[in-house]
Amino acid sequence: MTTTAHSIIAGVPVPGHDGSFRARDARNGEELEPAFTFIGAEEVAHATRAAAEAFDAYRATTPEQRAAFLQAVADAIEADGERIVARAVAESGLPQGRLTGELARTTGQLRMFADVVRRGDHLEARVDPAQPDRTPLPRSDIRQRHIALGPVAVFGASNFPLAFSTAGGDTASALAAGCPVVVKAHNAHPGTTALVADAVTRAVAEAGLPAGVFSVLYGAGNAVGQALVADPRIKAVGFTGSRAGGLALLRTANARPEPIPVYAEMSSVNPVFVLPGAVASDASSLAAAYVASLTLGSGQFCTNPGLVFVPEGADGDTFVKAAADAVAQAGGQTMLTDGIAGAYAAGTSVLRETPGVQVLAEGEAGVARNAPAPVLASTSAQTWASTEALQGEVFGAASLVIRYSSPAELADAAERLEGQLTATVQYAEGDEGEAQALLPVLERKVGRILFNGWPTGVEVGHAMVHGGPFPATSDSRSTSVGSLAIYRFQRPVAYQDVPDSLLPEAVRDDNPWGLNRRVDGVLRLAGEDLA
Amino acid sequence: MTTTAHSIIAGVPVPGHDGSFRARDARNGEELEPAFTFIGAEEVAHATRAAAEAFDAYRATTPEQRAAFLQAVADAIEADGERIVARAVAESGLPQGRLTGELARTTGQLRMFADVVRRGDHLEARVDPAQPDRTPLPRSDIRQRHIALGPVAVFGASNFPLAFSTAGGDTASALAAGCPVVVKAHNAHPGTTALVADAVTRAVAEAGLPAGVFSVLYGAGNAVGQALVADPRIKAVGFTGSRAGGLALLRTANARPEPIPVYAEMSSVNPVFVLPGAVASDASSLAAAYVASLTLGSGQFCTNPGLVFVPEGADGDTFVKAAADAVAQAGGQTMLTDGIAGAYAAGTSVLRETPGVQVLAEGEAGVARNAPAPVLASTSAQTWASTEALQGEVFGAASLVIRYSSPAELADAAERLEGQLTATVQYAEGDEGEAQALLPVLERKVGRILFNGWPTGVEVGHAMVHGGPFPATSDSRSTSVGSLAIYRFQRPVAYQDVPDSLLPEAVRDDNPWGLNRRVDGVLRLAGEDLA
Repeated sequence: MTTTAHSIIAGVPVPGHDGSFRARDARNGEELEPAFTFIGAEEVAHATRAAAEAFDAYRATTPEQRAAFLQAVADAIEADGERIVARAVAESGLPQGRLTGELARTTGQLRMFADVVRRGDHLEARVDPAQPDRTPLPRSDIRQRHIALGPVAVFGASNFPLAFSTAGGDTASALAAGCPVVVKAHNAHPGTTALVADAVTRAVAEAGLPAGVFSVLYGAGNAVGQALVADPRIKAVGFTGSRAGGLALLRTANARPEPIPVYAEMSSVNPVFVLPGAVASDASSLAAAYVASLTLGSGQFCTNPGLVFVPEGADGDTFVKAAADAVAQAGGQTMLTDGIAGAYAAGTSVLRETPGVQVLAEGEAGVARNAPAPVLASTSAQTWASTEALQGEVFGAASLVIRYSSPAELADAAERLEGQLTATVQYAEGDEGEAQALLPVLERKVGRILFNGWPTGVEVGHAMVHGGPFPATSDSRSTSVGSLAIYRFQRPVAYQDVPDSLLPEAVRDDNPWGLNRRVDGVLRLAGEDLA
Repeated sequence: MTTTAHSIIAGVPVPGHDGSFRARDARNGEELEPAFTFIGAEEVAHATRAAAEAFDAYRATTPEQRAAFLQAVADAIEADGERIVARAVAESGLPQGRLTGELARTTGQLRMFADVVRRGDHLEARVDPAQPDRTPLPRSDIRQRHIALGPVAVFGASNFPLAFSTAGGDTASALAAGCPVVVKAHNAHPGTTALVADAVTRAVAEAGLPAGVFSVLYGAGNAVGQALVADPRIKAVGFTGSRAGGLALLRTANARPEPIPVYAEMSSVNPVFVLPGAVASDASSLAAAYVASLTLGSGQFCTNPGLVFVPEGADGDTFVKAAADAVAQAGGQTMLTDGIAGAYAAGTSVLRETPGVQVLAEGEAGVARNAPAPVLASTSAQTWASTEALQGEVFGAASLVIRYSSPAELADAAERLEGQLTATVQYAEGDEGEAQALLPVLERKVGRILFNGWPTGVEVGHAMVHGGPFPATSDSRSTSVGSLAIYRFQRPVAYQDVPDSLLPEAVRDDNPWGLNRRVDGVLRLAGEDLA
């Protein structure tokens, strides 16, 4: 690396004039080269203007061109994988194995979207043929396809420096939809960002696409991000991070003359409902799996199990005791940043100081920097329900066990939950009644319901929903993981009596892209189309 | 009718305590019986509570039950059709033929959604089967379906007392999605509302559904509507009306602790681009069709052509002269309300008073009440581009012709447009180049592109988009007309390793509803599913 690095706007390094900074090694706090210059808010328009200028040409690419580009991005990231992982290990403090897996997930995600683009179902092509003889009025020929929204602002996340950052799920799904992307880099991992951005930039150039398809900006504080969301050329926002951060972007987006969609994945305590039959059947394995999920990656997953409902009585006591023993033996791991470690300390203090809450176990702080001890606490369903301070997320390896006395109390607790990314049910024979009563409530509260697992693994697939009602996200109609994420960046356009030669390929008579389409509302697979 | 009528909350007439009002006959201004009592904002919660309580049972209905209910609503409206149309004629001043057609459209819309619900494609069922042997980690079984958002607030529109009101497109699509509906009645047509609400209420009761599935509220001013949108039990809003009205609801929704989607269809000038070849080929027929579309229903359609770009030169002159002659001979028709007639007067004054704008023709005011003369004005592309006062919608039969001197000036004008419901291209041989240059711009600006027609007919079908970028609507990702409208009121939920017996029918192994589903992202028609 050179000694000074810069924002990359439409393929060109652009020195900023608002100071500079260096990343810190999360493991020891030491500064890492190079210095990155900060651009000012007034320079954001360079990137958004380039993105807007690139938009029509980029969205006009064929499925094959766009898919090949997404694959080229994946290839370019993979080609520099070792360097990217090494830098991410230093900047995040996350273990190498985890980041190697995250890199594979990131490239896999890009390749999945290449498949989605080739298949073309996301275009939602529909044809309602003309009915010239209809009475009392003839019907026009009307066709519909989805098009890209426009340039998208993506905010890198601290806890997934690869899979939810520069070329992560938001970027991959926006590019797949046909939207240019302007990334606001997360300042916790500027070097990782630079390496990934370099890979994307090379792929843009090699595909012969307009350079404005991709830019990445470094900015101090929140001014650059806010300016990006406020910029009239930006048409949607992807964000993964804190509730305060997400809400600030949402406010800015709503205050624009033209409001735009904000897809902010913000916070979730991911409640787990341990049903009586499950805890009776094997309390110890259940407790071991719980603590493994809780402490994974220092608890810094969006889907960390922060709240566990356990029945009162002997079986529940066994589970809680086993979990407490496991937490007591668990060591602290380095957290991502000083700020996150500070927030964890504050959050666990609340657990310690709230009347009616007992701290059941604390592990050992790690010898490394910012590696606080995991914490397990417990309270009653009644205290939890009546204590505002216990409703929020403690980001990190802290979890609160809530003891419940009856199915009714459990159902009541579920009703009181805010929106969540996940809810998990630990279930065994005999629990059918409770599970059936819980399910409709959970459906209203969460984006993903799991049985007999733990929520920390988020599969990148076609049925995955990593979303959920507010405040888990700012827009429950979507997911930020999986192929459904592409729908966030599209909107429908209808074509009425447009001559076939002027129609977009997706809705032409001869179906040149071989799409599955709806004809008069009835799905026809490619080949059995209008013939 | 009885002498006093009330809001209907969960099937029961509930007298309001905030005064009362009577509708006026739009044709003569006379008061119509009965009086309707206004509820206060504090009474809104009765309806939303009933809706929230009905939600789980209503969304759990099978496709067949829900479809039969939607058909029963259509049947009940049809059974009382004569009375409904007669009352709507009096309250709106719209002609009987138009309202008979609108009633058929309303019931047709409900029946279309019955078909959509039976087909089940809107559930977007997806199955990613488990891969227990995958390395390095096995994959869980993950399934996804869309579920209803929750109780929806619907605001009746003045210009479509049937098709965009009590049981109009918003209500039909929300009910189809599985959402209870609370309607805020439009005070221009309370009697029409009451008759339609009565039909819906009977259908709810006869279907054995919880009464909270449908309520209708009468309220003075904006307080009841605002309270409805602010109510925490309401999860989405459908609105058709003015920009000011839509933005006020959007602000309220965004200020909630939990923001919710607002689908407001607000305003559009529906630009028409007359290309040189088209105007050369038959200027007179084109002009006749233009003026017929402009004056239809006193110009009170969301898709009224308010802005027409015409080339300079002799052919354009011929078109403009023919249009002016036709407008001069056109008579005024009764507008919906005093307020709308007042706004039309103010809007046309702007046309008269803006420097650089020439009024080309004014028709005759109608002998009836509130029947102002149609107005045709003209200006240059340059004046239009630089005059803020000419950017907004004049609701009614007023239109502005913009003369352009070159394809470049036309493209520049298109770029300057705000978001619109429609854009229309009048096109003939020789116009390919201009049309191809315009299309990508129009796609970015509008929800529906028409060739060689006029935009006032909005077909209720599967490919229709009655939507578009802000300020045409508050959410460009949707349509308020056609079967795609159901997607506004849904969100995805994933099920991970949930036992088959506890899974919703849509994603069970045996596919009991016979749905088309995606398996590992690949569409499989019902029958060739998981086998």
